[in-house]
Amino acid sequence: MTEQNPLTVQALQWTGTSLKVLDQRKLPEHIIYDEYTDAAGVTEAIASMRVRGAPAIGIAAAYGVVLSVIEHYTSSSHWRQQVNADVEMLAQSRPTAVNLFWALAQMTDALDHEHDNPVAAAQSCAEKIHADDIVANLAMGELGADLLRGVKGVLTHCNTGALATGGHGTALGVIRSSYRRNPINVYAGETRPWLQGVRLTVWELAQDNIPVTLIADSAAAWLMKTGAVEWVIVGADRIAANGDTANKIGTYSLAVLAKRHGVKVMVVAPTTTIDWNMATGEHIEIEQRQQSELLPECYNQYQGVVSAWNPVFDVTPAELIDAIVTERGVVLNPAAHGVGGLKHAV
Amino acid sequence: MTEQNPLTVQALQWTGTSLKVLDQRKLPEHIIYDEYTDAAGVTEAIASMRVRGAPAIGIAAAYGVVLSVIEHYTSSSHWRQQVNADVEMLAQSRPTAVNLFWALAQMTDALDHEHDNPVAAAQSCAEKIHADDIVANLAMGELGADLLRGVKGVLTHCNTGALATGGHGTALGVIRSSYRRNPINVYAGETRPWLQGVRLTVWELAQDNIPVTLIADSAAAWLMKTGAVEWVIVGADRIAANGDTANKIGTYSLAVLAKRHGVKVMVVAPTTTIDWNMATGEHIEIEQRQQSELLPECYNQYQGVVSAWNPVFDVTPAELIDAIVTERGVVLNPAAHGVGGLKHAV
Repeated sequence: MTEQNPLTVQALQWTGTSLKVLDQRKLPEHIIYDEYTDAAGVTEAIASMRVRGAPAIGIAAAYGVVLSVIEHYTSSSHWRQQVNADVEMLAQSRPTAVNLFWALAQMTDALDHEHDNPVAAAQSCAEKIHADDIVANLAMGELGADLLRGVKGVLTHCNTGALATGGHGTALGVIRSSYRRNPINVYAGETRPWLQGVRLTVWELAQDNIPVTLIADSAAAWLMKTGAVEWVIVGADRIAANGDTANKIGTYSLAVLAKRHGVKVMVVAPTTTIDWNMATGEHIEIEQRQQSELLPECYNQYQGVVSAWNPVFDVTPAELIDAIVTERGVVLNPAAHGVGGLKHAV
Repeated sequence: MTEQNPLTVQALQWTGTSLKVLDQRKLPEHIIYDEYTDAAGVTEAIASMRVRGAPAIGIAAAYGVVLSVIEHYTSSSHWRQQVNADVEMLAQSRPTAVNLFWALAQMTDALDHEHDNPVAAAQSCAEKIHADDIVANLAMGELGADLLRGVKGVLTHCNTGALATGGHGTALGVIRSSYRRNPINVYAGETRPWLQGVRLTVWELAQDNIPVTLIADSAAAWLMKTGAVEWVIVGADRIAANGDTANKIGTYSLAVLAKRHGVKVMVVAPTTTIDWNMATGEHIEIEQRQQSELLPECYNQYQGVVSAWNPVFDVTPAELIDAIVTERGVVLNPAAHGVGGLKHAV
């Protein structure tokens, strides 16, 4: 394996007694870590989107539980009830991130099975969730990089890097791993309306000294036509059993454009992102966010005339995806057989 | 013909001795007209994008020549050389829109054929260019609206309205004319990086009380998949003889996405936009604008690592265009025969 340094960019830093959270809302202009010493603080860090990205949210919540145990175990005979209340509070910080509920369940389970030293048990579990995520990302990075042999240019969307995970990243992890083998040209779409591409992905890559070229989302087709990119590489918010993939709005657009230009599409996500019980992407609920993310305030005077349609995700059908890369392995041409084969893979 | 009021929104106001230019960079928050009394000022107004849109640029440049004649004719025996220098300066304000060069050629021609009163000749020519543009837009509006009979929803890109023309608009003129016959659902892409869609198109439509729904550019594919739009309607900066069309970056993307979803594509532009001598779109010069339109300043410290690719136009091949609407008539399926048949049409 090539040299790995997954910790250049850290969304979360655990000190043993506190959690430092990089405020991603202030990037790239300001690098500010806020330090939290209780679960309420961590809940606020998640709800306010200082930390975002499903895996990173789950890890932050796990450390939030550790802080709760530290706070209550020595000071209260009802410490477990108080921790449970904090778990409930953390669970309500964001509505949709599956990893959040999964991580909180892991933490609760660890506390249920350890009575002698709950502080150590909680900390150990949270650190394992964090470390496992990095290990999974590094594994996906290598598997994805194998697919990019001889490739000169790739385009990514949104932010799927260290900032969104425990470290290294999913789609951006593949780009990192590939770049370490051989330099490739990396293009990033700015990703309206939140601009995760320009604010987070470009910043992350700059920290690692990986050259990156930003484009407007609408320039992707023209970029593909120049022949500059051979793969589109994206993450996933949910993958159905047939391989249909929900991801940041604009992913479906990129996949359609890629098909026309002979550009391939790679989805990179841990198997925890796969919804084994969902047959196809047809029924994935797509969150609509506020119009104010697109419309300037001055349009408020035109109620009933001016509006915005702001879906946050779209669904890319499996037929437009060439490879789904997980920590358990790669599914090529998922439209043929779906991703069910990964369910019991090791 | 239904009631027409092409002058609700005015990008340019000619006073007889000066040109007032609506500073479109400040819309929709502020409605500010800057007043120019010489060609250098008008050149700056075009280069700085206070005024933009191919037809409006041509009209502004024509008035810039009038201002040059007014300035130099009475004060210099070499006035014509000075006007020619100003014409050259105006020609270099923006590279892609062919209307600019066409309008300047009209003005030069008018001056070549009038020796007694060049000021009057220049003003008359510029005013005719302006008035003819409005007449052409109203004609295109009706022709385009004929194609939209029974249509429920359309998507437009950038701003092709009164702000981009002498009045009424090209693609947005068709939408205006069509809406006056029967209300349709109008969607506008925000059009990064300059956001002409959100800042200009939404504002213009609001002035006319035409309901409009804004989307992120990257949401267009997902919108098409819902079946909400049957036509994409765009303007053009230059049309080659075979029908290939240069327009705002993102147009090519929309055309590819439209093809996949069975959505039709209409290009609306006056015949002055057609470059009869250019066989295909392959050789159209595409303007690249500054990286700073996409990159926040804080990235300046990462020279050589962080960059942006910022083409502001792309070329849509004729095969992806269903109709080209001009003031001289409509070309359906331009890929079959190109637009040459319009050259001598009346």
